Amino acid sequence: MSHSLALTQGDPAGIGLEITLKAWAAREAAGLAPFFLIGDPDLVAERAARLGLAVRIARVDPEGAAAAFPGALPVVPLPDRVRAEPGRPDPGTAAATLASIETAVRFVREGRAASLVTNPIAKHVLYAAGFRHPGHTEYLAALAAGPDGAVPRPVMLLWSELLAVVPLTIHVPLRRVPDLLTPDLVIETARIVDRDLRARFGRLSPRLVLAGLNPHAGEEGSIGTEDRDVLAPAVARLRDEGIDIRGPLPADTLFHARARAAYDVALAPTHDQALIPIKTLAFDEGVNVTLGLPFLRTSPDHGTAFDIAGQGIAKPDSLIAALRLAGRLTAARPA
Amino acid sequence: MSHSLALTQGDPAGIGLEITLKAWAAREAAGLAPFFLIGDPDLVAERAARLGLAVRIARVDPEGAAAAFPGALPVVPLPDRVRAEPGRPDPGTAAATLASIETAVRFVREGRAASLVTNPIAKHVLYAAGFRHPGHTEYLAALAAGPDGAVPRPVMLLWSELLAVVPLTIHVPLRRVPDLLTPDLVIETARIVDRDLRARFGRLSPRLVLAGLNPHAGEEGSIGTEDRDVLAPAVARLRDEGIDIRGPLPADTLFHARARAAYDVALAPTHDQALIPIKTLAFDEGVNVTLGLPFLRTSPDHGTAFDIAGQGIAKPDSLIAALRLAGRLTAARPA
Repeated sequence: MSHSLALTQGDPAGIGLEITLKAWAAREAAGLAPFFLIGDPDLVAERAARLGLAVRIARVDPEGAAAAFPGALPVVPLPDRVRAEPGRPDPGTAAATLASIETAVRFVREGRAASLVTNPIAKHVLYAAGFRHPGHTEYLAALAAGPDGAVPRPVMLLWSELLAVVPLTIHVPLRRVPDLLTPDLVIETARIVDRDLRARFGRLSPRLVLAGLNPHAGEEGSIGTEDRDVLAPAVARLRDEGIDIRGPLPADTLFHARARAAYDVALAPTHDQALIPIKTLAFDEGVNVTLGLPFLRTSPDHGTAFDIAGQGIAKPDSLIAALRLAGRLTAARPA
Repeated sequence: MSHSLALTQGDPAGIGLEITLKAWAAREAAGLAPFFLIGDPDLVAERAARLGLAVRIARVDPEGAAAAFPGALPVVPLPDRVRAEPGRPDPGTAAATLASIETAVRFVREGRAASLVTNPIAKHVLYAAGFRHPGHTEYLAALAAGPDGAVPRPVMLLWSELLAVVPLTIHVPLRRVPDLLTPDLVIETARIVDRDLRARFGRLSPRLVLAGLNPHAGEEGSIGTEDRDVLAPAVARLRDEGIDIRGPLPADTLFHARARAAYDVALAPTHDQALIPIKTLAFDEGVNVTLGLPFLRTSPDHGTAFDIAGQGIAKPDSLIAALRLAGRLTAARPA
């Protein structure tokens, strides 16, 4: 495997650079595949010194990252210097944050990087600089548009060693969820999950389950009708297509160890139905995986954490898990 | 402690008698306080023989249960014989099922039993025989009415060694939850939880948390307004009353080990927000505790399981946990 993972810098006032340095330092114990950061090597060196982390920095191009990786953190330089103070978000850094992401996507699409791992960004900092996408993932989808301009539909998978979940709705008021939960939403999401579990996770026969919207999945319509009238028909249609999906099943009994052994990914109607079990079981080790794009993208499942940036206390566990998963999945794919 | 726990028979076609026999057989290893069943001793003996369980039965009155308990399963006889076939629910058994519950409540209220533990019932069997209460807990509340006829408000607490939760809404369609979630519901429920944690669980300073309704507890109103406009004012009012409650807090990050260490009970707006984490962490050992009544009531957190009744495979873990908790809490109270 000559291709390394491309890692974006994220917001340079957040914890991204700190956890990147710590992840590189843990590369052997954590069994990480080679990765390179796209950022300002001088800023990375400055942050390492400030945090007392003895990490050498190597300026590389993507092709040189793997050779440098054992002895130094490989950094592919951005064209300009980046100046940032931990804990002090600054719209002046937005251009560099976006350039890191755009460069990473370009490398992956050109076959110069195996896949994409992203550090956290803060939307409000980018918005103040004129950014107009709803979020990080939608921005990546826009950058992944095909020659015809068609923007792919991204699907968020939260992954850990114990459980993988896909929320069908994300940052929307709970009150709106029943009306957003259409057959098309369930069907299109499940198709993408099924396809990418095969293509990216190497699962020959992915097993999906769908959690119900209402308590006890509605008990045949006696506790809400959406499970019977919306979710069950969508599952029937998916099964007709040959997709191995069961449900809707009562959400409360879907996440204990015996239940988890029977599926690969659980789809759930609400944000909390999906995120409560994974954050209960794997709080520090969850990985955010974006499916549906023409490349694999993983990221830690936390934010910029401006409040603790620069103090040396940020935990790299989730970034390490994101790098490890990306390395494992990329190595598993045919060259 | 001369008072034993009163255990109801539950639906005699379900797994109640089987798990009762298994719980008694496990009494020493599980450290159970003395309990007595209210049922038909002949049916219990017949069920034991059928399941190949070598359990002696002792016909007792409540005062004789503790002395009999080490050598035999104490049964306080119902007036009539009960005939039931495992897996075949029969409205003809409804009168005995209800008599067991009524007798148990009477014993507890008369001071002849320390507290009440109930085996599962099936509402549809009782409805077919003319029962008119919405469920087991509401029936107990009606039996607990005061001399003035006032029916107490029961509150369901799901308890395990790892986590205790109270769902603010239970078996209602998710679509209705936002409108059911009133300040009064939050305030009255939290008051009962606070009071009974002191009175029954011996907690001197109960610490409560409230999970948000919307993802991330609404992010200051940007993802739904109920957390800001309904839940936050209710919490402020409760704190003014001296109740130690925090929230609304994002539900997804409320249930991992470090978060759980900071509270005794979590209240959550929806059924699944409360039940997903406890069933993920403690699937077989959850206990259903009814607060708000003039006596303590615990029960296993599963149903009658007609589909497996009589096969000998029913797990007594949840009933054992319910008996153990009742014994522990009763022993902890002043005589």
